[in-house]
Amino acid sequence: MLRSVTFSARQVTVAFVDGTAARFHAIWLRDNALDPETRDPGNRQRLITLSDIPADLAITDAQLAGGDLRVTFAPEGKTVDFPGTWLADHVYDHAGQTPLLPKGTTTWDGTMPAPCSDWRDVRSNPRALRDWLAAVAELGFAKLTGGPAEPEALLRVADLFGHVRETNYGRFFEVRTEVNPSNLAYTGLGLQAHTDNPYRDPVPTLQILYCLENSAEGGESIVVDGFRAAERLREEDPAGFALLAGHPARFEYRGTEGVCLRARRPMIELSPDGQLQAIRFNNRSTAPLVDIPFDDMEAYYAAYRRLGELIDDPAMGVSFKLEPGESFIVDNTRVLHARKGYSGSGSRWLQGCYADKDGLLSTLAALQAQQPEAAE
Amino acid sequence: MLRSVTFSARQVTVAFVDGTAARFHAIWLRDNALDPETRDPGNRQRLITLSDIPADLAITDAQLAGGDLRVTFAPEGKTVDFPGTWLADHVYDHAGQTPLLPKGTTTWDGTMPAPCSDWRDVRSNPRALRDWLAAVAELGFAKLTGGPAEPEALLRVADLFGHVRETNYGRFFEVRTEVNPSNLAYTGLGLQAHTDNPYRDPVPTLQILYCLENSAEGGESIVVDGFRAAERLREEDPAGFALLAGHPARFEYRGTEGVCLRARRPMIELSPDGQLQAIRFNNRSTAPLVDIPFDDMEAYYAAYRRLGELIDDPAMGVSFKLEPGESFIVDNTRVLHARKGYSGSGSRWLQGCYADKDGLLSTLAALQAQQPEAAE
Repeated sequence: MLRSVTFSARQVTVAFVDGTAARFHAIWLRDNALDPETRDPGNRQRLITLSDIPADLAITDAQLAGGDLRVTFAPEGKTVDFPGTWLADHVYDHAGQTPLLPKGTTTWDGTMPAPCSDWRDVRSNPRALRDWLAAVAELGFAKLTGGPAEPEALLRVADLFGHVRETNYGRFFEVRTEVNPSNLAYTGLGLQAHTDNPYRDPVPTLQILYCLENSAEGGESIVVDGFRAAERLREEDPAGFALLAGHPARFEYRGTEGVCLRARRPMIELSPDGQLQAIRFNNRSTAPLVDIPFDDMEAYYAAYRRLGELIDDPAMGVSFKLEPGESFIVDNTRVLHARKGYSGSGSRWLQGCYADKDGLLSTLAALQAQQPEAAE
Repeated sequence: MLRSVTFSARQVTVAFVDGTAARFHAIWLRDNALDPETRDPGNRQRLITLSDIPADLAITDAQLAGGDLRVTFAPEGKTVDFPGTWLADHVYDHAGQTPLLPKGTTTWDGTMPAPCSDWRDVRSNPRALRDWLAAVAELGFAKLTGGPAEPEALLRVADLFGHVRETNYGRFFEVRTEVNPSNLAYTGLGLQAHTDNPYRDPVPTLQILYCLENSAEGGESIVVDGFRAAERLREEDPAGFALLAGHPARFEYRGTEGVCLRARRPMIELSPDGQLQAIRFNNRSTAPLVDIPFDDMEAYYAAYRRLGELIDDPAMGVSFKLEPGESFIVDNTRVLHARKGYSGSGSRWLQGCYADKDGLLSTLAALQAQQPEAAE
């Protein structure tokens, strides 16, 4: 795997057999040593702290050992092997801007056929489960069809990959028309595309909506890729994008006695190196914005308006009407969902619940490790 | 409340009776109108979207109405009243840097007496519950004493304010020595001060640790204010602080079959306007850092080392040994916890669980609204 090694006291340069090269610092190598005194061989956790590494650390030798790298560190006199493949997987010696989109994500618009899996398949076949979870990871959205039209079936969806996030709305909640609705979701009104609960910090990162009845007129679901909307905004108005990403918004919900949820988070959340982390967009629960400098407020509102137009653009949304026993899951940090208004003699009854991406992505990664052909 | 009002088409200037003045934009006022067509009087949610507000919005009249502000908007011809007190609460026309510390937080070091409430008090007296929650909100840490030494009592602590966050570790987990520990927490080893589960995104924002047995030698708990450590780092080394805040770290946990948790988040997370949002620090689960530019890696490691030294500084930690029936709660986005090693003939058995701050802060805000003297 490695072709050659050179070193100085503070860094090693390795050449890989594919012709690329990379430098690694002494402190980085020592901290990430894979030997059993540095990392527990069972649970793989690091056994040392940074203060256990002498501040006068230096490399005294580095050489090829098979295709691997063997490094000796002073003053410990410790020699550690680093597999060539492991080094190739952890190269950090590269130039270039961090891309806007997180690794493994692909954005989409209304021309995308809705990714869809079958209830029985994902429950009986680990490959089908893997593919369904992979769609959620890549696209932030997937449907599930052919399930039972039974109350609480949505909890069995969450059980496939992780754990329900219980909130003041319960382990799950009923989405149907109420007489005195504590939330406009519990009416027949149309709802603009939105992410759920931006007034909650941390926001629930997944939402499942499961259909039990849907014979009313209207009530179609629409999903919109918020990352695509953010991409489009940045392309056409980088300054507006920077305003929405550069200042916290405010969100609030006080629809029920004893509940007073508030968050101070941006509508477009970026990682410190500029990668899309989350979208928060919800006309119903946006509170008065008080963290934008006075002189920027009108331009902020113009960008906010434009983001809403992009989200409302019919070309952006994937529409479908859920049948009883059908459900969909969204990455609530990315994909917005809307509903058309409904009325008439029929009924519409959905159940919803929240869950988190940590469990979904962990289950997916474990399935992919068991079934390496997943990478094909 | 208001003394005078002047206006132009795009903004209103109000003078408050206390002598201060503030400007509000037309679009901001219209979007935040409190009338029943704009906000649902029951659940207080906004009924309109930004696209419902005409782009050629203009103020045609603004005047005093009692102590309040009355504004008329064209082209809708809509007149809306804004209470003077509401305007005073939502002023955004001010200069100045956002402070590093979130509003309502106070940092501390080892000289702080541990905030402590009584199990029976917080369960029977809403004021005691409010004060205990207020300590967690302000300081990120509080003890609870006098509880039953009964398994699962910690779940009754979480029930006081919100909901358990279930994870791959279960609804709660046993912290005691295991033969083949899936996590170094389940050994007698000392643990450097850390935040829990930085490899999880979203991270659990609260942790409860509840003592059932603690007769072993050692095993003391130590808590450290990560926000104070970040403050100290910024004071002595602003460039190092900027490196830790400016680049994502990586965290990983794969200690159990079927679990593969990974996160890409900074050790010091700031809001886009530079306010402390979260600290992530865990020597055991920090993965190879690959998002720091090569030329910054050594300086990043120097700052990371210094942050660890500040966290390990004995002057920073509040120490105590939990007795059976005692517990503590930490804001896991801020306060680190450590444990001294333990051994000997006795036993040590804690139970731990995670929960989230949304529920805690909501319950606190609702209690404060019911008991306004809380603000004294």
